[in-house]
This record gives sequence, structure tokens and C-alpha cells, in this order.
Amino acid sequence: MGELATLFGPERVAVVGATDRDGSVGRAITANLLADFEGDVVAVNPTKDEVLGLESHDSVGAVPDVDVAVVVVPPPIVLDAIREAAEAGIRDVVVITAGFGESGSEGARRERELRELAAEYDLNVVGPNSLGIMNTGVGLNATFGPENAQEGSISFMSQSGAFVTAVVDWANDRNLGFHNVVSLGNKAVLDESDFVREWGEDPDTDVILGYLEDVVDGRAFVESAREVSQDTPIVVVKSGRTEAGASAAASHTGAIAGSEEAYEAALDQAGVLRVDTVQDLFDFGSILAGQPLPERDGVAIVTNAGGPGVMTTDAVGDSDLSLASFTDETVERLQEALPDEANVYNPVDIIGDAPVERFAEALDIALADPNVGAAVVLACPTAPLSYEVLADAVVELQADHQVPVAATLMGGSSAREANERLSQVGIPTYFDPARAVRSLDALRAYREIGQREYTEPETFDVDREAAREILESAARRDTNRLGVEAMDLLDAYGIPTPDGDIVDARSDAVEAAERIAPDGEVVMKIVSPDILHKSDIGGVAVGVPPGEVGDTYEDLVTRARNYQPDATILGVQVQEMVDLDSGVETIAGMNRDPQFGPLVLFGLGGIFVEVLEDTTLRVAPVSESSAREMLDEIDAAPLLRGARGRDPVDEGSVVETLQRLSQLVTDFPAIVELDINPLVATPDGAQAVDVRLTIDQEQL
Amino acid sequence: MGELATLFGPERVAVVGATDRDGSVGRAITANLLADFEGDVVAVNPTKDEVLGLESHDSVGAVPDVDVAVVVVPPPIVLDAIREAAEAGIRDVVVITAGFGESGSEGARRERELRELAAEYDLNVVGPNSLGIMNTGVGLNATFGPENAQEGSISFMSQSGAFVTAVVDWANDRNLGFHNVVSLGNKAVLDESDFVREWGEDPDTDVILGYLEDVVDGRAFVESAREVSQDTPIVVVKSGRTEAGASAAASHTGAIAGSEEAYEAALDQAGVLRVDTVQDLFDFGSILAGQPLPERDGVAIVTNAGGPGVMTTDAVGDSDLSLASFTDETVERLQEALPDEANVYNPVDIIGDAPVERFAEALDIALADPNVGAAVVLACPTAPLSYEVLADAVVELQADHQVPVAATLMGGSSAREANERLSQVGIPTYFDPARAVRSLDALRAYREIGQREYTEPETFDVDREAAREILESAARRDTNRLGVEAMDLLDAYGIPTPDGDIVDARSDAVEAAERIAPDGEVVMKIVSPDILHKSDIGGVAVGVPPGEVGDTYEDLVTRARNYQPDATILGVQVQEMVDLDSGVETIAGMNRDPQFGPLVLFGLGGIFVEVLEDTTLRVAPVSESSAREMLDEIDAAPLLRGARGRDPVDEGSVVETLQRLSQLVTDFPAIVELDINPLVATPDGAQAVDVRLTIDQEQL
Repeated sequence: MGELATLFGPERVAVVGATDRDGSVGRAITANLLADFEGDVVAVNPTKDEVLGLESHDSVGAVPDVDVAVVVVPPPIVLDAIREAAEAGIRDVVVITAGFGESGSEGARRERELRELAAEYDLNVVGPNSLGIMNTGVGLNATFGPENAQEGSISFMSQSGAFVTAVVDWANDRNLGFHNVVSLGNKAVLDESDFVREWGEDPDTDVILGYLEDVVDGRAFVESAREVSQDTPIVVVKSGRTEAGASAAASHTGAIAGSEEAYEAALDQAGVLRVDTVQDLFDFGSILAGQPLPERDGVAIVTNAGGPGVMTTDAVGDSDLSLASFTDETVERLQEALPDEANVYNPVDIIGDAPVERFAEALDIALADPNVGAAVVLACPTAPLSYEVLADAVVELQADHQVPVAATLMGGSSAREANERLSQVGIPTYFDPARAVRSLDALRAYREIGQREYTEPETFDVDREAAREILESAARRDTNRLGVEAMDLLDAYGIPTPDGDIVDARSDAVEAAERIAPDGEVVMKIVSPDILHKSDIGGVAVGVPPGEVGDTYEDLVTRARNYQPDATILGVQVQEMVDLDSGVETIAGMNRDPQFGPLVLFGLGGIFVEVLEDTTLRVAPVSESSAREMLDEIDAAPLLRGARGRDPVDEGSVVETLQRLSQLVTDFPAIVELDINPLVATPDGAQAVDVRLTIDQEQL
Repeated sequence: MGELATLFGPERVAVVGATDRDGSVGRAITANLLADFEGDVVAVNPTKDEVLGLESHDSVGAVPDVDVAVVVVPPPIVLDAIREAAEAGIRDVVVITAGFGESGSEGARRERELRELAAEYDLNVVGPNSLGIMNTGVGLNATFGPENAQEGSISFMSQSGAFVTAVVDWANDRNLGFHNVVSLGNKAVLDESDFVREWGEDPDTDVILGYLEDVVDGRAFVESAREVSQDTPIVVVKSGRTEAGASAAASHTGAIAGSEEAYEAALDQAGVLRVDTVQDLFDFGSILAGQPLPERDGVAIVTNAGGPGVMTTDAVGDSDLSLASFTDETVERLQEALPDEANVYNPVDIIGDAPVERFAEALDIALADPNVGAAVVLACPTAPLSYEVLADAVVELQADHQVPVAATLMGGSSAREANERLSQVGIPTYFDPARAVRSLDALRAYREIGQREYTEPETFDVDREAAREILESAARRDTNRLGVEAMDLLDAYGIPTPDGDIVDARSDAVEAAERIAPDGEVVMKIVSPDILHKSDIGGVAVGVPPGEVGDTYEDLVTRARNYQPDATILGVQVQEMVDLDSGVETIAGMNRDPQFGPLVLFGLGGIFVEVLEDTTLRVAPVSESSAREMLDEIDAAPLLRGARGRDPVDEGSVVETLQRLSQLVTDFPAIVELDINPLVATPDGAQAVDVRLTIDQEQL
């Protein structure tokens, strides 16, 4: 157990603000604690002599050896109560009282003071504005909810107290148990990262579930979740995903959340299984708690009904699992065991007249197949089939083979008892076979998380001082936006760029062109921090032959001046021609998220960036394996690999560019936004043809 | 009622093969009929005197006025039994007996004979290999399933009998009722189209649900479903969607199904709401049967719990609904009605201490808002809130406002009674608010189907004879594949092509180029039915200046000869240059589906067709409105509308090209496949730059 061992496993809990007033929160908590808790409950309320049969104490300091103080006094005296507890040596506090950060400026001030107090005394504080916490292992129900949870191996945290109440009520009805339950409240001190870390060390927690509206410290969460998720699955609903949802969340919690894109990337990198619905949260949580992980992706379907078998096969097709291909031995054994009309290939159709024995034999054979990693037991009600006896057989076979099984015993009341027997041993059951398959697929997804190899990001040998000088010189010019004049920044970090010079005289332009392409053509672009869309104003000339370089220089400058007389013109860039036809235009970019810091982006470039949005993101720093994944993830990935007989591009060069970009933006917090567009990927390497960035001078 | 009025509403039903043998199908059907049927039940079995208290007759002809014969005799005597019934004047037959098309060649022969018999006597035959049919309106349960359905307004057909059994069992447990239920069996005579048509005319059927593995006659289904779906929603699971599922379906039914792409397009054009899962099938069916359609897309969420409110808002964001924006009046009324801490904007958070009265008042105000088209009632269990009383209030308010409502009363046993009250009046309830929103979104989707205006496809004035001559001349050359030499085919159907000639002499090439582009450049391509990838062998020259036309002609021919000495070379095409830079390369194509006939395709062209698969399909003929939808549907649609400051292309010209292509492939069944790639869409119109097609000479 970790730092919160005492919080969840106290021997003595004090309710500060205990009362027997009907309908009060203080009464509900005291009563809940008295119901099942293995330890002592202490009532603290100076206005009472006795509360629900307990002696009432004037102060929490009056009773020795209190481990946890649950605070339900009115907001103005919460801080005094906590200080008193802290002085008495209590380190673990649950603040139920509301009226803090969620309600006005006085509440916000109070929350700040609570945070300071916690720091001063090194307190573990849950809340404020929390429904409380539960630990079924010691019968601890320090919440004011109407029901206590059943025992189980799932630990659940929720940023909504109401949702905790609803979930416990619903889960009790389905025999779904929890180990710990935490209502996070305002997360003034302890937040999701703390509980993830704690439960990662807790042998009684097999699965961590969370309902979150934001994450207090993005990078801390990614770090702790990444470590914990290697051994303990974490499934999270992060709400406020959509624009409408985000603004609803903001008005609900007042928190400034990071962007949805950042959360999506960060949760994935942290090894969190992110789900969108309550149904998936508990479907996935249940199967992860109840079933072993599949050793391979092949699924066997054993059914007495062909039609639903087809639907289930479709569901497998929709998932990242596959329909297992049986070995010859399995097929032969099934042929021997089943009647002629049966289908001995997967999905195994044992025919509608099958009794339980036939079902069990077919399932036994299928589970033994070396290509089978998981199985769906799929039954429709028939006269010869007893669902209860089938359930018992499935329980036994699953235990024998240790292969994950999900069940769909279709029907209503006829399936109830059987479903209960299955779910009691952790085999999930659903009316819809698609949910059974989705759940098995969640096992696969988590197996892959557990198999991930996180590599440390490489640190390349770069010219950091040169890069700093470029940024500082921009700051000296009081410029926040840089364009091609920042190509040197990329050079400093070893990102390949076409040969080029920025010149501010006609003769220099001619000279530069002669050096870069002695007899060939060049590209020329106006260089001005004030002109963003250079091509729109005719500020770019492509394929300029040797004889026209001088005139083109004059033209570009004139056009820019006409377009925007007050624009600062730094000169004209003369650049080597890059053959776009043999390459693929990609984009490599970065922006900074308030919650997660620098995010690195990769995608299809050119006009497709805007229209098709074929991009992918990572929270920096980006390791080599992450960068490689980014290349694989975009829809246009086949273009990079040489679709239609083209030569594949040099992916290694793109991968390295993303890593070097990640290093650059991590080294310089002053870089707020950066786009290399296009980054032209060719069989001979990647080249950054154009760049645009925004800097925050105060960060320099 | 339609042609099947007697089948579903008989006054006298005979069970041919009635028996009292324990565990037999004949006994189960006779008993089911005797249980609730309002009409007469007649037992036919020459080996018995009495069956379950009924006099047993030697033949179905022995009893007058039998309306429906349910046949359960062994396979070899089924046909005789049906002929006897037909001779006795019976027109409606349900064949329960299996052992037909689904089992071997003898069964297939038997099924053919059954079909002939039905044609001879003009019989309506359900099955064979059917579980039977139900009509709760007259208590008719002519199935051998264990349970009869409850009364309701959903009619349900299923290609799997086992699934019928499972669904009825499950639905009874949830108070979900049906009007008619049909197990389609082998669909030898009556198929899905017949039942869709029947139920479309049935005033007691509000919603049609189907589980289908294939469709017997694709075009007939599209036609009948399109008509019916204007007034009666049709929701269908068509399984065998995925590659694995399709092969499972083929081994299950033996049917050769059309392609998944064709089904997808056809079901959509037919106005069918296609769903992938059992859950959606019944969620959507229930709400369509129970709630009115929303008049607008704005959803109001009224809740006592902020967190779940955010999740629900996310679900709205995921859907094609939107979060309703309240009028000032609504906001003011909510401000008056709710405490200060409440959120009076959508989602309305009435705060955790709300009693039912506050909930009802807020819901009443929200439902009255002119921007609200539907509402989600979302509650977490709290002490002051009685779910039962809340349910009663919701029922009343929904009835008052006639706005569709879905409910999420979160919790388990605490919500059971309330959920029952709601579902009894047709207000669906779910633990997961995302399902509530999905269901409301299904109402929206169906409203849009009802609002569709189906326009007749236009018939353009084309030169059909010229087109025929081109196809026949290819047939005379014994060629199945045509390339640019078929550009004239497009011309004949008024599809714009660049100016061009096919020439077979150097001098003709020079002359053609002079005519086409007196001083400019031309494109030249080798023309050979044997060389498919012309550019790969250097068979295409772009930007040929006037002086080089002759030499280029020789070069192209030489290259083609070297590449493939035995290739038939029809000449060289000299074509006007098309400015690809100002246009968007699209593809317009066609292929022929075994089930649905010609399908017209539109998509992003060039190398993106293969990599990004950004395409959309329609079953021909394609009307103008359909063609317009196709342009809107592709991901790259913004490119057509002028992304990044480009001029929008002439969409009308592309739309007309698709319509003319549809007419061409409908007129000539011999065209098996056709691709116009690229169809260059520019601001000045669309141009078919290249074409490739495959013909089936036997169809000419």
C-alpha cells in the first residue's frame, strides 16, 4: 500500500460535525460508518452529548489515535476544524463540506487556504465538496450516500458525487463490487494522480475506473498512469469531449481544461483505456476485473443459433480481434462431437436441438484450440437447453482453460438466474452479443498496453545556443511571429532544410542563386513577419531560372510593399528547388496545451491538412517508437510507404525530424506554436521547406 | 390492410400435422394457437382422433373456411399437404417444416417445387423452415416458440427463428410489445419486401423492425421500403456486414448476398434506418413506437447532477442533434423557478437538493421553449427525490407538450418501478444517458427520412445509338476492356470530355494537334485495350509542344510495341491539355452488384482514391438530389467548394455528369464496370479526362 494506506485503512475515524438531525449529511455519514466499519467511530460535535448512541466529543483532539477526520461542519469553520485535527496528529482528512472553489470568490479563497494548510501540515485531503470515500475491505463507508458498495476488486473515483451514488445503487443491483470508491470533490489537495498511484500499489485493486471532467496536473497524471497501467488497467470517462460538453463542464467545475486533442493523446500515451460512455466504463471494468487477458486475438464463437452467430461474427469483424481459425485437430474433434448438420468451423453452430452436454463439449474443444484467445458463448432459449446448467458448465470450462469468456444467453426472465451465476464468477453476460465482443476487445486493448515498451526519448546533439540566439534576436526586434527567417532554427536542431539564403539586395540574390543552383532554378519568397500568407499576395516565385533572379527579387519586394506598406521586410529567401512530385507533402507541427504542455503533430500536408484533418498528436517529449506510431496512424500512411508503385519515402528521416522537433519545443518554452508545412518526405529523406512559429517573449 | 390481411387476421387456422406428442413442434404450435387465438383452431392429422382436446381431421379439405394452414408435417409430404390446402381454397400457408433449401440438393429441389406450387395457386407462403408468425391483435401465435409476445405497435421480422424466440422472451421481460412477428425462414415465396409492404398499410403497425441476412430482390426491396418508410419507420440489422460475418452468413443461409457497399447504399436510399447491434435495433424501435418525432434538433437536458449532465451533453455533441439554446424568456422563467446556485442554461442543473416539484417545473419550462425539440430527463438518486413521483410528472409533462422525451434515472433497484412507469407509456429509460441521446437521435434521423423529397431521375437527351455502336464495335473486335477509345461513349451521353482525336498516323497526329491547340501544348496517350497502366510504360506524354507532336507519336508507339509486342494498338489519342492545378481530380465510376444492379460511385480522385477511399455510392438510377448528396458526402467536399481561397468548382456540372453516367449504365446492362478517372472538376465545369470500362458481350 502507498501513502494513502491510513486514509483507506484507518482504525479510528472521527466525524467532525456528527449529528443526529434528520436528513442531515452529518447523520448520514455517522450512520453509514456505524453500519459496517471494522474500526472505531468517533463523533465530534460540541453542541451534542450523544450522536446515534456515540458519545459526542467537543473536539477531534479530545480523542487519541484518530486516523481519519471526516469534516462536515459548515464552510466557515472547516479550516479551523482541520487545523485542530492536524495539530492532534491526524494526517488524513475527508472534507464533505461544500462552498469552496465551486462557489464564488470567498469559496475560492477558502480553498486556497485549505491547500496552504494541507501543505503546512503535510495532510492528505479528499475534497472539499466530496460525497466521501469507501473501502469495502474494512467496511468503511465515509460517504453520505444511501447505499454502501459491495466488495469487489474495482476501485472507482469520480469527479461527480451524484454519479457515485447512482453507480453504487446500480452496481449493487448487478452484483458488481468495488474495493475503494472516492468522490474526488474539488480536488484541492488529492487528485486523480494520487489515487492512480495509490491503487497501483494496492494488491486488492485489480482495475481502476474513473469519471473525470479534467485532470489537475496533466504531466503528473500521464507519468503516474503510465507506470500504473503497466500492471493495473485504468479505464476512464473524461467528459467535456465535445465542444458543447466542454462548455458544460467549464460551467460545472469552473476548471480550465486542456484541449480535447491533448487529452486524447495524453490518455493514450498514459496507457489509459479511454471510453465515452457509462456502459463501456462498467462493461470494460467488469471484464477486466473478472477475466484473464487473452493470449492471442482469435475469438471462438460457440452457439446454438446461426443468425445471432452471424451478428456476433460481425461484431468480431468490427473489433481489433479476429475470428479464430481452428486447427485441423479441433475441426476433427468437433466433427466427431457434433451432428452432421452442425457447423464445425468458427462460428461453431451446434444446431438448435443441442442439449447442454453438446454445448459444453463444443466449448471445451474450442477453448483448447491453440489459435483461440477468447470465446463468446452465445445461446438462444430452446426446450432442450437449461440456461442454468449451461452457466455452470461455462463457469467450469472457463476455470479449466483460463481463457477469457463472455456470454450472451439471449432472453429475459429465462436467462436471469444463469446470468447471475456467470457474473458472480466474473464472466460478463449481455443480451447484445456486440457488447460481449466489445468487452473481450477491451481485454485485448489492455493486453497491448501491458506489452508496450516505453522507450526514453533520445537527446540529439544540437546547437542549442544558436537556436536561443535566433529566438532572442526575434525578441529584440519585438517580433512574435517568425517565418522562413527561422529556417536556421531548424538547422540548429539538425532538421534538414533545403539549401537557402536570406538576402536583402538584388545582387546578393543573384549570387545566392548561383551558389545554390549554378545552372538551375530556385524558389524565391518574401521574408516578412507581417505577411503570413505569402503565396496569396504573390510573394512566392517557384522555378525562377538563373536570368530572372534579379528581376524577381525586385518584383517580390515591390509586391510586398504595395500589399502592406508598413510591413517589415527582412529580405527575400532564395531556396533550392524541392521536387514535390516525387515526395509526399506532410506537416510537422507543435502547439502548447495549458494542461499538457507541448504537443507534437504529424499529418498529411498541403491543402489536405485543413480539409481532411489527417493528423495525429503526441504529448512531448516524443520517443522514436512514438514518432514511428505517428507515421502509422495517419490515414494517408500508405502514401508514405509508396502507394501505386511509387518509391516509399525515407520514414526514418521523418521520424527523426519529429524527435528533433520535440526536443526543440521542449528546450524552449518560448516557442508557443510551430508549423513545418510542408515537410516534404521523399525516398531520399525529409526536408522542411517552410516554417512558421509564434514565440512568447516572456518565456525567453 | 394489404394482401396479407388474411394471413395475419384469419378466422380459422388449421395445423396440418397437429399432434400431442410431448416435445414435438406440432404440439407446441397447436398449444400456442389454443392459448390466445380469438378464432377457430383446426387440427389435421389422419393418425389421430383428437389432439389437445380438438377433433383431429384427416385432411385440411375436410373442414370448410380455413383461412391459414400451418404446415408441420415431415418434409416429403409438405408439398402434398400444401396442394391439398390450395385445392380447398386456402391461400395463406405457413411452412414450419425444415429440410428445404437449407439442406442439400433434395431440399433445394423441394423448395423449387414449393415456389412453383405457390405460383400455380397464387399462394402466400411463409417459410419453409420458419418458427411461424404472430399477430397479437387477434391473439394469433402460430409459432412453436415458448412464449407469446405482448401487444404493441412494433412489427418484427427475422431471418433467424432462434432470434425471434430470444427477442420475445427478452421483450416480455421489459414490457415491450409487438403487433406482428414473422420468422421469415427460407423466404421461398414471401420475403422482406412483402412484409414491409404489408405493414406499411397496416394501421396497427407503427414501426417495422427486421433482422436480415440478405434481401431476396434488391430493387424490389428498395422500392417498397422507400415508399413505406415515408410514413412508417423501418429499422434493420443487416448482418454479414464484415468479411468474417459475410462468410458466416453464407455458410448459414447459403445465399449469395450483394456487396456490403451495395447494401449500405441501398438501405440508405430506401429510407431504412440501418443499425449494427441488437441494442440499437430495440432502442430505436422502442422510441419510434413510443414517442413523437422532434420538430427541431435542439435538445434540453434537465438534471439534478452536474457530472452526468456533462456526459449527456457530450452524447448530444456526438449525435446529429444539438444542445438547444434557450430563449431569454425561458432563462428568466428558470431563474425565477430555481435556486441561485442552479444552472439555468442548458444543460439545466437544478442542484442535488431538488425535490420532484422543482424537477417538474424546470422540465415544464424547458419543454415549452420554442428551440427545444426533445428532452433528456437525467436524475441521480437523492433523498428528496422520489423516482416514482418524478416518473409520473415526466409522463404528464411529455403528454402535455408532445415533445419526445428520453429518461435516465440512474440507479439500480431504486429506479426499477419508475422506469417501468415510464416505459409503459413509451418513454424509454436507460442507465447510460448516451443511449437516451442516441435514441432521440434516431427520431431525428427518421424525421429526416420522412422529409426526404424523392425526385424522379431525369432522362437526358442522349445519342443512345451511337453509344450502342461503340459497344458493339468493341464486341466485334472481341474486346471486353475499353480505354480512351471509349471517350466517344461519354460524348454520346453528353458527358464533357476534353477535345481530342484518336489517330493512327504521324501526320494525322500533327494535324489533330494543330486543330486542338493551334499554338499550345497537347497531351498524347497510347490507345490499346491491352495496356492498362499507360503511364507506367511511358505511354503518356503531357505538355507536348507543336513541334514535337510527330516525334512523340513515334515514340509512344515504339514504347508500346517494345513493352508488349502482341498488344493491339488502336492508335494515339491527341487531347487538349486540362489544367489540373485549377481543378480537383475526382472519380466517377460504376460497378454492377449481383443483388442491386448498377451502383454509381463518386469520390476524390487521383492516387487518393486508393489510399483514402473517400468515395460514396448510390444504386442507379441517380436523381439530381441524390447526385448532389454524393458531392456533399465525401470528406473532401470542402475542396469542391473552394477550400483555402480557391474558386469553387462548378458542382452542377459534376452532378449532371453523375446523372448522365447513371443513365448510360442503366441503358446498357452490358457495361459491367466503368471508371472516369480523373473527372476533373474546375470552376468552369467538369471534364472526363480518362475512362476505362469492362463490358459483358453477352448482354449486348
